[in-house]
Amino acid sequence: MERQQVKNESITSRDVDFAQWYTDVCKKAELMDYSSVKGFIIYRPYGYAIWEQIQSYLDKKFKQTGHQNVYMPMVIPESLFNKEKEHVEGFAPETLIATQGGKEKLDERLIIRPTSEVLFCEHYAKIVSSYRDLPKKYNQWCSVVRWEKTTRPFLRGAEFLWQEGHTVHATESEARQETLTILDIYATLGKELMAVPFLQGRKTDKEKFAGAMETYGIEALMYDGKSLQSGTSHYFGTGFAEAFGISFQDRDNTLKPVHQTSWGVSTRLIGSLIMVHGDDNGLVLPPLVAPIQIVIVPIQMNKEGVLEHARALADELSAAGYRVHLDASDQTPGWKFAEYEMKGVPLRLEVGPRDIQNGIVVASTRHDHKKANWNRSEVVSSIPALFKEIHHEMYQKAVNHLQSHIFPVANIDELTKAVQSGYAKTMWCGQQACEDKVKELTSATARVLPFDQKPHAETCAICGKKATKVIYFAKAY
Amino acid sequence: MERQQVKNESITSRDVDFAQWYTDVCKKAELMDYSSVKGFIIYRPYGYAIWEQIQSYLDKKFKQTGHQNVYMPMVIPESLFNKEKEHVEGFAPETLIATQGGKEKLDERLIIRPTSEVLFCEHYAKIVSSYRDLPKKYNQWCSVVRWEKTTRPFLRGAEFLWQEGHTVHATESEARQETLTILDIYATLGKELMAVPFLQGRKTDKEKFAGAMETYGIEALMYDGKSLQSGTSHYFGTGFAEAFGISFQDRDNTLKPVHQTSWGVSTRLIGSLIMVHGDDNGLVLPPLVAPIQIVIVPIQMNKEGVLEHARALADELSAAGYRVHLDASDQTPGWKFAEYEMKGVPLRLEVGPRDIQNGIVVASTRHDHKKANWNRSEVVSSIPALFKEIHHEMYQKAVNHLQSHIFPVANIDELTKAVQSGYAKTMWCGQQACEDKVKELTSATARVLPFDQKPHAETCAICGKKATKVIYFAKAY
Repeated sequence: MERQQVKNESITSRDVDFAQWYTDVCKKAELMDYSSVKGFIIYRPYGYAIWEQIQSYLDKKFKQTGHQNVYMPMVIPESLFNKEKEHVEGFAPETLIATQGGKEKLDERLIIRPTSEVLFCEHYAKIVSSYRDLPKKYNQWCSVVRWEKTTRPFLRGAEFLWQEGHTVHATESEARQETLTILDIYATLGKELMAVPFLQGRKTDKEKFAGAMETYGIEALMYDGKSLQSGTSHYFGTGFAEAFGISFQDRDNTLKPVHQTSWGVSTRLIGSLIMVHGDDNGLVLPPLVAPIQIVIVPIQMNKEGVLEHARALADELSAAGYRVHLDASDQTPGWKFAEYEMKGVPLRLEVGPRDIQNGIVVASTRHDHKKANWNRSEVVSSIPALFKEIHHEMYQKAVNHLQSHIFPVANIDELTKAVQSGYAKTMWCGQQACEDKVKELTSATARVLPFDQKPHAETCAICGKKATKVIYFAKAY
Repeated sequence: MERQQVKNESITSRDVDFAQWYTDVCKKAELMDYSSVKGFIIYRPYGYAIWEQIQSYLDKKFKQTGHQNVYMPMVIPESLFNKEKEHVEGFAPETLIATQGGKEKLDERLIIRPTSEVLFCEHYAKIVSSYRDLPKKYNQWCSVVRWEKTTRPFLRGAEFLWQEGHTVHATESEARQETLTILDIYATLGKELMAVPFLQGRKTDKEKFAGAMETYGIEALMYDGKSLQSGTSHYFGTGFAEAFGISFQDRDNTLKPVHQTSWGVSTRLIGSLIMVHGDDNGLVLPPLVAPIQIVIVPIQMNKEGVLEHARALADELSAAGYRVHLDASDQTPGWKFAEYEMKGVPLRLEVGPRDIQNGIVVASTRHDHKKANWNRSEVVSSIPALFKEIHHEMYQKAVNHLQSHIFPVANIDELTKAVQSGYAKTMWCGQQACEDKVKELTSATARVLPFDQKPHAETCAICGKKATKVIYFAKAY
């Protein structure tokens, strides 16, 4: 009985109601909880710990590539916010605004940052004056507020955690290179840490960031066939620099505006981890991002020696650098099995009196539900290869799912069908009218213009005119 | 010429105008800058990097002692904020309030968190129901907003960065122990990382936190003889638990309220680093907290081989795990010397053509302005002992300064004199009237009731009645 795998009935099946499954997992795996303000969630320890793994990975990469962390104010004076026209139009409808300080009405309304471009611009205008001051490559870890009507945990929230990088450069080519360097870091994060393959490419003018000349994005395909924009990297040209007066004396003694970028990923990435890897028993986490990598469940805990044996195993694994949790609570083993399956812990080790006698440990892997007996003496040495294998298998499964859900389409009917379950790889004339038409007819949107622009047909799948671009359409979160 | 130490004339001397010296150092060492909203500062890379060292140290200690990180919303509905009477009275006058979301006026005003007790309480009330759920020991890293009239960089700001821990326990003794465990972690942070000795003790009822039964604090003595409250740890009893309904079914099947704590340190700690260790040339940082531990300044950089030699040295030191900066910019060595002195870099290494020929490196230590020739081959191996020595000397100097500025006083005249330059160690009757009188006459306030309560007289230094307590008074930031 004790060792039987218990199907978790407390969550909806993915194929019955995917949206409900998602919310169930968010709550039951204790990733988050709702607060009393709509759209503002509580990042519970287990959810926050996933974010900490992502942070730690990215922060190291950012620093290795010459970025420095800073912290800017969380409020923006309304007049400053209004300085760049396109930008303010993009964000103004969804801002939270403070109007009162202590007992007094504020002289100027303060916008709770929805993003910090204008704050960085104002600061850069003060501290940049010579080519010697360039580049400046700053990043900040913070939360931002977007006053959204419809919210979903991690995917769209009134407040979310993110990093926002903001850089200024002497030349266009250097700034453009920065934008792509960061996109590559994001894609590598997906591949190396999250076991999530991202589609990469450029955004259309319609979909790009408010104020950007070029936006690049990473997109991941969810289990339900929808795409999740998981990060963006923008090249601003000199637009902000001219609006905010960020210029520098170059080596040739002329005054030039800087070339600027910004880029960010957020706690949305947790959403993609859930929806790419999760199954009907809950979360499934790849080992590197998992807050608990190994859970140890003692069987017949009251029998002499069992708990001591389990503790020794936990200590040994901790000492080897793994994130281990020994659950010595008075819950039943069955309850514990379901609990840590729900939480997506990659590896479960069970030890009971007979196992101890036989010198073995029962090892179960979360992603493939396999069980095996390991020699107790080989536990620690088995793990590096196992974790590599788990990561590889999860990544490969996600790659297969992605690749088998990219459908080259020749006309609007095929496109409409394709976006029911994945990406419509579409030849496009480049006109926004056709992009608009796709959205109107299918509710799918342009996700990216992939870097690989090899055409598979000559005419636009929407209007039939000459095609100039390869583009991916999909329904999106 | 090149090797001459340049007195930095760009900052005021400490003894001429300490407040101006402080602001000069904050700005010139590039720790911060002002934003366009009063009291909201920009944490520049060098200042933020100090905070990252403090974070990294504390985060590890918190996790080792069983704490978990979470993230709560940055806004608090006004009705929730008003639930605990003393607490709201303490904070309401200095809150920033949002009243507008998008185009609409909010149904309920939202307070930008000045501290998050009520948010944790609301969450704990939802997730705690059994003794099995206890203790919960949560911490969060975030910024908070206090709408202060008078602000100073790091010391008192409209927005500052901090950590706030919030824990709930089954018993009073466990909660009280938690409060002291954290106080000890803070004190150890001072001693081990910052080389700052803290006075520790309990706060008087007048000075304790709004809503707390007991507040403990750490205080540091600044160069100018004022005390800086650098961290606090509170025991709340069951007051919040009763206001918010946080109760649990105990093993004996009765329903009990939890016992609660909260505690925090902030970017104020950067202020104490500046004012405890700084000198007339700028910042002086102990090695463990310094963002740059070693700066390498090449001399006659254009001479063949100099830059290569400097790079090899930098690489070797980086590989050994040190935070090294090679300044290969086209500024003069004199400029660089002043710059990194201003930034308080503990160790400067110079290499010029003659040094290379002689197989030496010129090493200068920031805290004592000493210079020595080191054999090139012994550089890396010399540093561990040197850094230990620097840390020890800086700590000992601060301890001596502290101890020589604690003055046992017998009456109000002696007290008045003592608080001109440090702490008045005072016998006190325990009446708030006397505490008030000290403030009125001297502007000094009660800092702590030290744990060591050994009396040095029998009567209250203020009123002459029977003394029951030892207390430290000082002027404070």
